[in-house]
Amino acid sequence: MQRPPIKHCKNCGHAVVYRLPDDGDTKERAVCPVCNTVHYENPLTVVGTIPAWGDKVLLCKRNIEPRFGKWTLPAGFMELNETVAEGAARETTEEAGAQFEMGEFFSLVNIARVGQVHLFYRAQLLSDQFDPGFETQEARLFTEDEVPWDEIAFRTVGETLKRYFADRSKGQFGIHVFDIT
Amino acid sequence: MQRPPIKHCKNCGHAVVYRLPDDGDTKERAVCPVCNTVHYENPLTVVGTIPAWGDKVLLCKRNIEPRFGKWTLPAGFMELNETVAEGAARETTEEAGAQFEMGEFFSLVNIARVGQVHLFYRAQLLSDQFDPGFETQEARLFTEDEVPWDEIAFRTVGETLKRYFADRSKGQFGIHVFDIT
Repeated sequence: MQRPPIKHCKNCGHAVVYRLPDDGDTKERAVCPVCNTVHYENPLTVVGTIPAWGDKVLLCKRNIEPRFGKWTLPAGFMELNETVAEGAARETTEEAGAQFEMGEFFSLVNIARVGQVHLFYRAQLLSDQFDPGFETQEARLFTEDEVPWDEIAFRTVGETLKRYFADRSKGQFGIHVFDIT
Repeated sequence: MQRPPIKHCKNCGHAVVYRLPDDGDTKERAVCPVCNTVHYENPLTVVGTIPAWGDKVLLCKRNIEPRFGKWTLPAGFMELNETVAEGAARETTEEAGAQFEMGEFFSLVNIARVGQVHLFYRAQLLSDQFDPGFETQEARLFTEDEVPWDEIAFRTVGETLKRYFADRSKGQFGIHVFDIT
């Protein structure tokens, strides 16, 4: 995990200490010695889509770090007050400005090393015209052969794309659960 | 969302203000006016299992709030540095002290109202003897008819159990994605 440690209490601002909480918890947490607030650090959920147009998929060239200039599926951190599908749709609108219909759930990818779970849905594009937001330099359609496999931003995306094209060539889409170490 | 708001910066302890960050983000976040730390509040992932023994499933009677005394599947908040399956297995050990083999992914349940995603795996019990931890008053096996449907702690659990027994009677287990509003 590359997250910075919690140094101060989110409730009262006092310096925290890392220790076992008093409730029987078996993991050390950032605990406030003044107001007793326990700060939990939990995995983050990334949600996205595989937007399809005929035999092509939509990829976005990143205009932000990390992986500036590399290609990715539209995806980002899930927000409060939305479902996985709503979050995946929101990211597809924000990053690609695409017109689409949401499809079925496609992949659950664990990246335990960085405390993340990535969840992808299939989506059906309704147009091949895009209007990407500031996070994206360019949104473009690729057939399997055209995908810039060596220029994919994240392994979660590359591995999801491989399984997508494999299912597509079989004519049947499954649900894929796998880990990236 | 019932989570308390962030009042102080986790990095320096100064009082935060809720505003749009300077990076193009479209949602208000708790931002520190002194050290500029942006605090994100994200959905939490709950992971658990449906442990089966013949035509019975294992339920745990809760010994903690919320829903003290109600019955649930073994489940809890996913931790850093584990996969969904590892977290589900950990909770099954902690809450039921069960001997089991993990099975396939079974359900993804959105509860957007409280900012949670619940993920359940099937599991095959290897013994009908349990050694529940402090969070559980009692761990017991139930057939579908015996399940205390009116005493189930959480709708995510009740709805997952209904789908489990329906699939079981069809002789084929699927993967279920649904929302609880």
